[in-house]
Amino acid sequence: MILRQRVDAARVGHLATTRPDGRPHVVPCCFVLVGTTVYSAVDAKPKSTLALQRLRNLAATPVACLVVDHYDEDWRQLWWIRLDGGARVLEAGAEREAALEALAGKYPQYVDARPPGAVVAVDVTEWRAWP
Amino acid sequence: MILRQRVDAARVGHLATTRPDGRPHVVPCCFVLVGTTVYSAVDAKPKSTLALQRLRNLAATPVACLVVDHYDEDWRQLWWIRLDGGARVLEAGAEREAALEALAGKYPQYVDARPPGAVVAVDVTEWRAWP
Repeated sequence: MILRQRVDAARVGHLATTRPDGRPHVVPCCFVLVGTTVYSAVDAKPKSTLALQRLRNLAATPVACLVVDHYDEDWRQLWWIRLDGGARVLEAGAEREAALEALAGKYPQYVDARPPGAVVAVDVTEWRAWP
Repeated sequence: MILRQRVDAARVGHLATTRPDGRPHVVPCCFVLVGTTVYSAVDAKPKSTLALQRLRNLAATPVACLVVDHYDEDWRQLWWIRLDGGARVLEAGAEREAALEALAGKYPQYVDARPPGAVVAVDVTEWRAWP
């Protein structure tokens, strides 16, 4: 269907989480949708505060929201698709390895620079689309 | 400075809020930065559930996070800028009118289709940038 095709084709999404103190947090991210799970690697500066914020957030509130959208100056062409679901942090193991394979299949940039850190898995339970 | 220029030039941002139940929520949005306040109109389907979700969220947790970013297949060109701050919902009044003027100044699309609904104002207190 067109929603799935648009999500699969998107090169970047925006992943929102909730900070431990309740404030919202959002970052752009590369991702891949496998079945009904979104996978995203924490690939930038794994030891930095910035990269770890979303992991701290998910430890407190294990839920995430990913939006994929298209901007165009012709506003009749605008669309977005939002995927919500529970989130897990994969530090190691077979699912993380499979996710990294899928990410490298979508992004050639990952083939020679495999992300060393955690992978966020969002088990999507709700799709919303506009318009 | 370059951060300000990038935010001013951006045509779309992504605005995250926290739902009353603590789950995160994010939508793409048009916005304008005036001084240290980000303004964004709730212009799509003002009576729909979708458009009102962010207003319900802000009533419960009056804090927002806007990210502006650039995607490029050359990942050395990636950047993002994140603006955090307290959020207010302007239903009427002079500040809302001035915000709509500023939005129409940035987006010609608004000139003949002035948003009828609320304006979200985010008083930015923190800037984060990557890389």
